[in-house]
Amino acid sequence: MQYVKSKDGVPGLRERKKQATKVALSEAAVRLAAEHGAENVTVEAISSAAGVSPRTFFNYFESHDDAFLMIDAEVGQRIRRALREAPAEIPVLEVLRDAFLAELTDVAERHEVWSLRAKVFQRSPYLLVRGLGAHMAEERELAQAVADRLGSAAGDRVGLYPRLVASVATAAIRTSIEDWCERTPDVEFAEVFRATFAHLTSGMTPPDTPDTR
Amino acid sequence: MQYVKSKDGVPGLRERKKQATKVALSEAAVRLAAEHGAENVTVEAISSAAGVSPRTFFNYFESHDDAFLMIDAEVGQRIRRALREAPAEIPVLEVLRDAFLAELTDVAERHEVWSLRAKVFQRSPYLLVRGLGAHMAEERELAQAVADRLGSAAGDRVGLYPRLVASVATAAIRTSIEDWCERTPDVEFAEVFRATFAHLTSGMTPPDTPDTR
Repeated sequence: MQYVKSKDGVPGLRERKKQATKVALSEAAVRLAAEHGAENVTVEAISSAAGVSPRTFFNYFESHDDAFLMIDAEVGQRIRRALREAPAEIPVLEVLRDAFLAELTDVAERHEVWSLRAKVFQRSPYLLVRGLGAHMAEERELAQAVADRLGSAAGDRVGLYPRLVASVATAAIRTSIEDWCERTPDVEFAEVFRATFAHLTSGMTPPDTPDTR
Repeated sequence: MQYVKSKDGVPGLRERKKQATKVALSEAAVRLAAEHGAENVTVEAISSAAGVSPRTFFNYFESHDDAFLMIDAEVGQRIRRALREAPAEIPVLEVLRDAFLAELTDVAERHEVWSLRAKVFQRSPYLLVRGLGAHMAEERELAQAVADRLGSAAGDRVGLYPRLVASVATAAIRTSIEDWCERTPDVEFAEVFRATFAHLTSGMTPPDTPDTR
Protein backbone atom coordinates (compact mmCIF):
# COMPACT_ATOMS: atom_id res chain seq x y z
CA MET A 1 0.00 0.00 0.00
CA GLN A 2 2.93 2.33 -0.68
CA TYR A 3 0.78 4.76 -2.64
CA VAL A 4 -1.23 5.47 0.48
CA LYS A 5 1.75 5.71 2.76
CA SER A 6 3.76 7.91 0.40
CA LYS A 7 0.79 10.24 0.12
CA ASP A 8 0.06 10.55 3.81
CA GLY A 9 3.48 9.81 5.20
CA VAL A 10 4.20 7.28 7.91
CA PRO A 11 1.63 7.54 10.75
CA GLY A 12 2.85 9.93 13.46
CA LEU A 13 3.80 8.87 16.97
CA ARG A 14 0.47 10.07 18.33
CA GLU A 15 -1.43 7.98 15.79
CA ARG A 16 0.68 4.91 16.50
CA LYS A 17 0.19 5.31 20.24
CA LYS A 18 -3.57 5.50 19.80
CA GLN A 19 -3.49 2.40 17.62
CA ALA A 20 -1.40 0.53 20.20
CA THR A 21 -3.81 1.47 23.00
CA LYS A 22 -6.80 0.23 21.04
CA VAL A 23 -5.08 -3.08 20.24
CA ALA A 24 -4.07 -3.47 23.91
CA LEU A 25 -7.66 -2.89 25.05
CA SER A 26 -9.08 -5.40 22.54
CA GLU A 27 -6.52 -8.03 23.42
CA ALA A 28 -7.12 -7.56 27.14
CA ALA A 29 -10.88 -7.82 26.57
CA VAL A 30 -10.58 -11.04 24.56
CA ARG A 31 -8.10 -12.66 26.97
CA LEU A 32 -10.30 -11.87 29.97
CA ALA A 33 -13.43 -13.04 28.15
CA ALA A 34 -11.80 -16.32 27.11
CA GLU A 35 -11.25 -16.99 30.80
CA HIS A 36 -14.40 -15.57 32.40
CA GLY A 37 -16.97 -15.11 29.61
CA ALA A 38 -17.58 -11.71 27.99
CA GLU A 39 -20.67 -11.06 30.15
CA ASN A 40 -18.54 -11.27 33.28
CA VAL A 41 -15.76 -8.95 32.15
CA THR A 42 -16.25 -5.30 33.12
CA VAL A 43 -14.96 -2.20 31.36
CA GLU A 44 -12.99 -1.52 34.55
CA ALA A 45 -11.25 -4.90 34.35
CA ILE A 46 -10.39 -4.47 30.66
CA SER A 47 -9.08 -0.94 31.20
CA SER A 48 -7.04 -1.98 34.20
CA ALA A 49 -5.48 -4.91 32.31
CA ALA A 50 -4.51 -2.53 29.50
CA GLY A 51 -3.23 0.11 31.93
CA VAL A 52 -5.70 2.87 31.08
CA SER A 53 -8.69 4.43 32.82
CA PRO A 54 -12.29 3.35 32.12
CA ARG A 55 -12.85 6.86 30.74
CA THR A 56 -10.10 6.25 28.17
CA PHE A 57 -11.82 2.96 27.21
CA PHE A 58 -14.78 4.94 25.90
CA ASN A 59 -12.50 7.07 23.72
CA TYR A 60 -11.85 3.89 21.75
CA PHE A 61 -15.07 1.90 21.97
CA GLU A 62 -18.67 3.03 21.96
CA SER A 63 -19.78 0.15 24.16
CA HIS A 64 -18.51 -2.67 26.37
CA ASP A 65 -19.31 -5.29 23.70
CA ASP A 66 -17.36 -3.51 20.95
CA ALA A 67 -14.06 -4.24 22.67
CA PHE A 68 -14.42 -7.99 22.02
CA LEU A 69 -15.10 -7.71 18.29
CA MET A 70 -11.53 -6.87 17.24
CA ILE A 71 -12.91 -5.20 14.15
CA ASP A 72 -10.97 -2.06 13.37
CA ALA A 73 -13.07 0.25 11.20
CA GLU A 74 -9.92 2.14 10.27
CA VAL A 75 -8.57 -0.90 8.44
CA GLY A 76 -11.60 -0.83 6.16
CA GLN A 77 -11.12 2.90 5.64
CA ARG A 78 -7.49 2.40 4.62
CA ILE A 79 -8.42 -0.39 2.19
CA ARG A 80 -11.10 1.80 0.60
CA ARG A 81 -8.67 4.72 0.39
CA ALA A 82 -6.21 2.45 -1.44
CA LEU A 83 -8.98 1.63 -3.94
CA ARG A 84 -9.60 5.35 -4.48
CA GLU A 85 -5.96 6.40 -4.71
CA ALA A 86 -4.11 3.55 -6.43
CA PRO A 87 -3.13 4.35 -10.05
CA ALA A 88 -5.89 3.38 -12.47
CA GLU A 89 -3.70 0.89 -14.35
CA ILE A 90 -3.29 -1.38 -11.30
CA PRO A 91 -5.90 -4.18 -11.42
CA VAL A 92 -8.42 -4.03 -8.61
CA LEU A 93 -7.44 -7.41 -7.12
CA GLU A 94 -3.81 -6.31 -7.03
CA VAL A 95 -4.75 -3.16 -5.12
CA LEU A 96 -6.72 -5.27 -2.64
CA ARG A 97 -3.95 -7.84 -2.29
CA ASP A 98 -1.32 -5.21 -1.44
CA ALA A 99 -3.61 -3.15 0.78
CA PHE A 100 -4.75 -6.17 2.83
CA LEU A 101 -1.23 -7.59 3.03
CA ALA A 102 -0.05 -4.29 4.53
CA GLU A 103 -2.76 -4.63 7.20
CA LEU A 104 -1.97 -8.27 7.94
CA THR A 105 1.72 -7.85 8.75
CA ASP A 106 0.99 -8.73 12.36
CA VAL A 107 -1.15 -11.77 11.57
CA ALA A 108 1.52 -14.02 13.09
CA GLU A 109 1.52 -12.13 16.38
CA ARG A 110 -2.26 -11.79 16.51
CA HIS A 111 -3.04 -15.38 15.54
CA GLU A 112 -3.33 -16.55 19.16
CA VAL A 113 -5.72 -13.78 20.18
CA TRP A 114 -7.86 -14.40 17.08
CA SER A 115 -8.26 -18.03 18.13
CA LEU A 116 -9.28 -16.85 21.58
CA ARG A 117 -11.79 -14.48 20.00
CA ALA A 118 -13.39 -17.42 18.15
CA LYS A 119 -13.84 -19.18 21.50
CA VAL A 120 -15.31 -16.03 23.08
CA PHE A 121 -17.81 -15.73 20.21
CA GLN A 122 -18.78 -19.39 20.51
CA ARG A 123 -19.55 -18.87 24.18
CA SER A 124 -21.39 -15.55 23.72
CA PRO A 125 -23.44 -15.85 20.54
CA TYR A 126 -24.74 -12.26 20.81
CA LEU A 127 -21.16 -11.15 20.13
CA LEU A 128 -21.03 -13.40 17.08
CA VAL A 129 -24.17 -11.72 15.76
CA ARG A 130 -22.59 -8.28 16.22
CA GLY A 131 -19.32 -9.43 14.71
CA LEU A 132 -21.06 -10.94 11.69
CA GLY A 133 -23.12 -7.80 11.21
CA ALA A 134 -19.96 -5.66 11.27
CA HIS A 135 -18.19 -7.98 8.81
CA MET A 136 -21.13 -7.90 6.44
CA ALA A 137 -21.25 -4.10 6.61
CA GLU A 138 -17.50 -4.01 5.84
CA GLU A 139 -18.04 -6.28 2.84
CA ARG A 140 -20.81 -4.04 1.50
CA GLU A 141 -18.62 -0.95 1.88
CA LEU A 142 -15.78 -2.74 0.13
CA ALA A 143 -18.10 -3.66 -2.77
CA GLN A 144 -19.19 -0.02 -3.02
CA ALA A 145 -15.55 1.13 -3.11
CA VAL A 146 -14.77 -1.37 -5.89
CA ALA A 147 -17.81 -0.14 -7.84
CA ASP A 148 -16.62 3.47 -7.39
CA ARG A 149 -13.14 2.59 -8.63
CA LEU A 150 -14.61 0.96 -11.73
CA GLY A 151 -16.69 4.05 -12.42
CA SER A 152 -20.25 3.33 -11.41
CA ALA A 153 -22.51 6.37 -11.54
CA ALA A 154 -23.75 7.80 -8.26
CA GLY A 155 -27.02 6.19 -7.25
CA ASP A 156 -26.42 3.07 -9.32
CA ARG A 157 -26.96 -0.15 -7.44
CA VAL A 158 -23.73 -2.02 -6.77
CA GLY A 159 -23.46 -4.65 -9.48
CA LEU A 160 -22.60 -8.33 -9.42
CA TYR A 161 -18.90 -7.89 -10.20
CA PRO A 162 -18.00 -5.46 -7.36
CA ARG A 163 -19.96 -7.58 -4.88
CA LEU A 164 -18.19 -10.67 -6.07
CA VAL A 165 -14.77 -9.02 -5.74
CA ALA A 166 -15.61 -8.10 -2.13
CA SER A 167 -17.00 -11.50 -1.10
CA VAL A 168 -14.35 -13.53 -2.92
CA ALA A 169 -11.47 -11.40 -1.58
CA THR A 170 -12.89 -11.77 1.94
CA ALA A 171 -13.16 -15.55 1.53
CA ALA A 172 -9.64 -15.70 0.07
CA ILE A 173 -8.18 -13.74 2.99
CA ARG A 174 -9.88 -15.99 5.54
CA THR A 175 -8.68 -19.11 3.70
CA SER A 176 -5.09 -17.88 3.46
CA ILE A 177 -5.04 -17.17 7.20
CA GLU A 178 -6.47 -20.62 8.01
CA ASP A 179 -4.07 -22.38 5.66
CA TRP A 180 -1.08 -20.45 6.97
CA CYS A 181 -2.05 -21.16 10.60
CA GLU A 182 -1.75 -24.89 9.88
CA ARG A 183 1.60 -24.56 8.10
CA THR A 184 3.37 -22.00 10.24
CA PRO A 185 6.31 -21.78 10.84
CA ASP A 186 7.15 -23.69 7.62
CA VAL A 187 5.93 -20.89 5.34
CA GLU A 188 5.71 -17.12 5.48
CA PHE A 189 2.22 -15.64 5.62
CA ALA A 190 2.96 -13.29 2.70
CA GLU A 191 3.84 -16.29 0.53
CA VAL A 192 0.52 -18.05 1.23
CA PHE A 193 -1.36 -14.78 0.76
CA ARG A 194 0.24 -14.07 -2.63
CA ALA A 195 -0.35 -17.65 -3.79
CA THR A 196 -4.02 -17.29 -2.83
CA PHE A 197 -4.49 -14.15 -4.91
CA ALA A 198 -2.52 -15.71 -7.79
CA HIS A 199 -5.14 -18.50 -7.85
CA LEU A 200 -7.90 -15.87 -8.08
CA THR A 201 -6.29 -13.94 -10.94
CA SER A 202 -5.39 -17.09 -12.88
CA GLY A 203 -9.03 -18.20 -13.13
CA MET A 204 -8.81 -20.79 -10.34
CA THR A 205 -7.17 -23.39 -12.58
CA PRO A 206 -5.80 -26.27 -10.50
CA PRO A 207 -2.07 -26.18 -9.73
CA ASP A 208 0.07 -28.69 -11.68
CA THR A 209 0.77 -30.72 -8.57
CA PRO A 210 -1.92 -31.25 -5.96
CA ASP A 211 -1.50 -28.33 -3.64
CA THR A 212 -1.23 -30.23 -0.42
CA ARG A 213 1.96 -28.92 1.10
CA MET B 1 -25.55 -32.69 -12.67
CA GLN B 2 -26.77 -35.10 -15.32
CA TYR B 3 -23.94 -37.54 -14.70
CA VAL B 4 -25.32 -38.14 -11.24
CA LYS B 5 -28.94 -38.36 -12.32
CA SER B 6 -28.20 -40.69 -15.22
CA LYS B 7 -26.26 -42.96 -12.91
CA ASP B 8 -28.81 -43.17 -10.14
CA GLY B 9 -31.96 -42.49 -12.10
CA VAL B 10 -34.55 -39.89 -11.21
CA PRO B 11 -35.35 -40.02 -7.48
CA GLY B 12 -38.27 -42.34 -6.80
CA LEU B 13 -41.67 -41.23 -5.53
CA ARG B 14 -40.82 -42.38 -2.00
CA GLU B 15 -37.60 -40.34 -2.01
CA ARG B 16 -39.38 -37.25 -3.35
CA LYS B 17 -42.13 -37.57 -0.74
CA LYS B 18 -39.54 -37.73 2.04
CA GLN B 19 -37.79 -34.69 0.63
CA ALA B 20 -41.08 -32.77 0.44
CA THR B 21 -41.94 -33.64 4.05
CA LYS B 22 -38.55 -32.42 5.27
CA VAL B 23 -38.91 -29.14 3.37
CA ALA B 24 -42.45 -28.68 4.71
CA LEU B 25 -41.27 -29.21 8.30
CA SER B 26 -38.37 -26.76 7.92
CA GLU B 27 -40.57 -24.12 6.33
CA ALA B 28 -43.23 -24.52 9.00
CA ALA B 29 -40.54 -24.23 11.71
CA VAL B 30 -39.06 -21.06 10.23
CA ARG B 31 -42.45 -19.41 9.63
CA LEU B 32 -43.59 -20.13 13.18
CA ALA B 33 -40.26 -18.97 14.62
CA ALA B 34 -40.35 -15.73 12.64
CA GLU B 35 -43.63 -14.98 14.36
CA HIS B 36 -43.08 -16.35 17.87
CA GLY B 37 -39.32 -16.85 18.30
CA ALA B 38 -37.69 -20.27 17.89
CA GLU B 39 -37.61 -20.86 21.66
CA ASN B 40 -41.41 -20.60 21.78
CA VAL B 41 -42.14 -22.97 18.92
CA THR B 42 -42.66 -26.60 19.94
CA VAL B 43 -42.05 -29.73 17.91
CA GLU B 44 -45.80 -30.38 18.23
CA ALA B 45 -46.62 -27.01 16.64
CA ILE B 46 -44.16 -27.52 13.78
CA SER B 47 -45.40 -31.04 13.11
CA SER B 48 -49.01 -29.96 13.21
CA ALA B 49 -48.37 -27.07 10.78
CA ALA B 50 -46.70 -29.52 8.37
CA GLY B 51 -49.46 -32.12 8.79
CA VAL B 52 -47.35 -34.87 10.37
CA SER B 53 -47.00 -36.39 13.83
CA PRO B 54 -44.28 -35.30 16.30
CA ARG B 55 -42.88 -38.82 16.00
CA THR B 56 -42.45 -38.28 12.26
CA PHE B 57 -40.62 -35.00 13.02
CA PHE B 58 -37.82 -36.98 14.66
CA ASN B 59 -37.44 -39.17 11.59
CA TYR B 60 -36.19 -36.04 9.84
CA PHE B 61 -34.43 -34.00 12.53
CA GLU B 62 -32.32 -35.11 15.45
CA SER B 63 -33.40 -32.19 17.60
CA HIS B 64 -35.90 -29.35 17.84
CA ASP B 65 -33.27 -26.77 16.85
CA ASP B 66 -32.20 -28.60 13.69
CA ALA B 67 -35.54 -27.85 12.03
CA PHE B 68 -34.75 -24.12 11.87
CA LEU B 69 -31.35 -24.48 10.23
CA MET B 70 -32.62 -25.35 6.74
CA ILE B 71 -29.31 -27.06 6.05
CA ASP B 72 -29.86 -30.22 4.07
CA ALA B 73 -26.89 -32.55 4.52
CA GLU B 74 -28.02 -34.48 1.46
CA VAL B 75 -27.31 -31.47 -0.76
CA GLY B 76 -23.66 -31.54 0.35
CA GLN B 77 -23.57 -35.30 -0.28
CA ARG B 78 -24.88 -34.85 -3.82
CA ILE B 79 -22.33 -32.09 -4.55
CA ARG B 80 -19.51 -34.29 -3.31
CA ARG B 81 -20.80 -37.22 -5.33
CA ALA B 82 -20.75 -35.02 -8.42
CA LEU B 83 -17.09 -34.20 -7.70
CA ARG B 84 -16.30 -37.92 -7.46
CA GLU B 85 -18.28 -39.02 -10.51
CA ALA B 86 -17.97 -36.21 -13.08
CA PRO B 87 -15.63 -37.08 -15.99
CA ALA B 88 -12.03 -36.12 -15.21
CA GLU B 89 -11.81 -33.68 -18.13
CA ILE B 90 -14.48 -31.36 -16.68
CA PRO B 91 -12.82 -28.54 -14.68
CA VAL B 92 -13.61 -28.64 -11.00
CA LEU B 93 -15.35 -25.24 -10.96
CA GLU B 94 -17.58 -26.35 -13.82
CA VAL B 95 -18.59 -29.47 -11.88
CA LEU B 96 -19.41 -27.32 -8.87
CA ARG B 97 -21.32 -24.78 -10.94
CA ASP B 98 -23.58 -27.40 -12.51
CA ALA B 99 -24.03 -29.40 -9.32
CA PHE B 100 -25.00 -26.34 -7.25
CA LEU B 101 -27.22 -24.95 -9.98
CA ALA B 102 -29.16 -28.23 -10.00
CA GLU B 103 -29.70 -27.81 -6.25
CA LEU B 104 -30.74 -24.18 -6.52
CA THR B 105 -33.58 -24.60 -8.99
CA ASP B 106 -36.07 -23.69 -6.28
CA VAL B 107 -34.12 -20.63 -5.08
CA ALA B 108 -36.91 -18.37 -6.36
CA GLU B 109 -39.58 -20.19 -4.38
CA ARG B 110 -37.46 -20.52 -1.26
CA HIS B 111 -36.19 -16.94 -1.25
CA GLU B 112 -38.91 -15.71 1.10
CA VAL B 113 -38.38 -18.43 3.66
CA TRP B 114 -34.60 -17.85 3.56
CA SER B 115 -35.17 -14.20 4.45
CA LEU B 116 -37.37 -15.31 7.34
CA ARG B 117 -34.64 -17.68 8.46
CA ALA B 118 -32.18 -14.78 8.61
CA LYS B 119 -34.58 -12.95 10.93
CA VAL B 120 -35.03 -16.05 13.11
CA PHE B 121 -31.24 -16.40 13.43
CA GLN B 122 -30.88 -12.73 14.33
CA ARG B 123 -33.37 -13.18 17.12
CA SER B 124 -31.95 -16.49 18.38
CA PRO B 125 -28.16 -16.23 18.15
CA TYR B 126 -27.65 -19.81 19.42
CA LEU B 127 -29.22 -20.96 16.14
CA LEU B 128 -26.82 -18.74 14.21
CA VAL B 129 -23.91 -20.43 15.99
CA ARG B 130 -25.26 -23.87 15.05
CA GLY B 131 -25.93 -22.77 11.49
CA LEU B 132 -22.46 -21.30 11.07
CA GLY B 133 -20.88 -24.42 12.51
CA ALA B 134 -22.82 -26.59 10.05
CA HIS B 135 -21.87 -24.33 7.12
CA MET B 136 -18.21 -24.42 8.09
CA ALA B 137 -18.31 -28.21 8.34
CA GLU B 138 -19.92 -28.36 4.87
CA GLU B 139 -17.15 -26.11 3.48
CA ARG B 140 -14.45 -28.35 4.97
CA GLU B 141 -16.07 -31.45 3.48
CA LEU B 142 -16.32 -29.71 0.12
CA ALA B 143 -12.60 -28.82 0.27
CA GLN B 144 -11.78 -32.47 1.06
CA ALA B 145 -13.87 -33.65 -1.91
CA VAL B 146 -12.07 -31.18 -4.22
CA ALA B 147 -8.71 -32.42 -2.91
CA ASP B 148 -9.80 -36.02 -3.54
CA ARG B 149 -10.85 -35.21 -7.09
CA LEU B 150 -7.46 -33.62 -7.76
CA GLY B 151 -5.71 -36.71 -6.45
CA SER B 152 -4.41 -35.95 -2.99
CA ALA B 153 -2.98 -38.95 -1.19
CA ALA B 154 -4.93 -40.34 1.77
CA GLY B 155 -3.81 -38.67 4.98
CA ASP B 156 -2.47 -35.59 3.22
CA ARG B 157 -3.63 -32.33 4.71
CA VAL B 158 -6.08 -30.49 2.48
CA GLY B 159 -4.02 -27.90 0.61
CA LEU B 160 -4.54 -24.24 -0.09
CA TYR B 161 -6.11 -24.70 -3.52
CA PRO B 162 -8.95 -27.10 -2.55
CA ARG B 163 -9.76 -24.93 0.47
CA LEU B 164 -9.84 -21.87 -1.72
CA VAL B 165 -12.14 -23.52 -4.26
CA ALA B 166 -14.55 -24.39 -1.44
CA SER B 167 -14.55 -20.97 0.24
CA VAL B 168 -14.63 -18.98 -3.00
CA ALA B 169 -17.42 -21.13 -4.50
CA THR B 170 -19.43 -20.69 -1.29
CA ALA B 171 -18.91 -16.90 -1.37
CA ALA B 172 -19.81 -16.81 -5.07
CA ILE B 173 -23.05 -18.73 -4.50
CA ARG B 174 -24.07 -16.43 -1.66
CA THR B 175 -23.27 -13.35 -3.77
CA SER B 176 -25.20 -14.62 -6.77
CA ILE B 177 -28.27 -15.26 -4.60
CA GLU B 178 -28.05 -11.78 -3.03
CA ASP B 179 -27.56 -10.08 -6.39
CA TRP B 180 -30.40 -12.01 -8.00
CA CYS B 181 -32.74 -11.23 -5.08
CA GLU B 182 -32.31 -7.52 -5.82
CA ARG B 183 -32.83 -7.91 -9.56
CA THR B 184 -35.63 -10.44 -9.70
CA PRO B 185 -37.86 -10.70 -11.72
CA ASP B 186 -35.74 -8.84 -14.32
CA VAL B 187 -33.21 -11.66 -14.64
CA GLU B 188 -33.21 -15.44 -14.29
CA PHE B 189 -31.28 -16.87 -11.37
CA ALA B 190 -29.38 -19.29 -13.65
CA GLU B 191 -28.12 -16.32 -15.69
CA VAL B 192 -26.71 -14.53 -12.63
CA PHE B 193 -25.25 -17.79 -11.34
CA ARG B 194 -23.47 -18.57 -14.60
CA ALA B 195 -22.14 -15.00 -14.87
CA THR B 196 -20.75 -15.32 -11.34
CA PHE B 197 -18.84 -18.49 -12.14
CA ALA B 198 -17.65 -16.99 -15.45
CA HIS B 199 -16.02 -14.18 -13.42
CA LEU B 200 -14.23 -16.78 -11.29
CA THR B 201 -12.90 -18.77 -14.23
CA SER B 202 -11.83 -15.67 -16.16
CA GLY B 203 -9.47 -14.53 -13.38
CA MET B 204 -11.82 -11.90 -11.97
CA THR B 205 -10.98 -9.34 -14.64
CA PRO B 206 -13.44 -6.44 -14.56
CA PRO B 207 -16.28 -6.55 -17.12
CA ASP B 208 -15.95 -4.10 -20.03
CA THR B 209 -18.85 -2.03 -18.81
CA PRO B 210 -19.35 -1.42 -15.11
CA ASP B 211 -21.51 -4.31 -14.03
CA THR B 212 -24.29 -2.34 -12.38
CA ARG B 213 -27.39 -3.61 -14.07
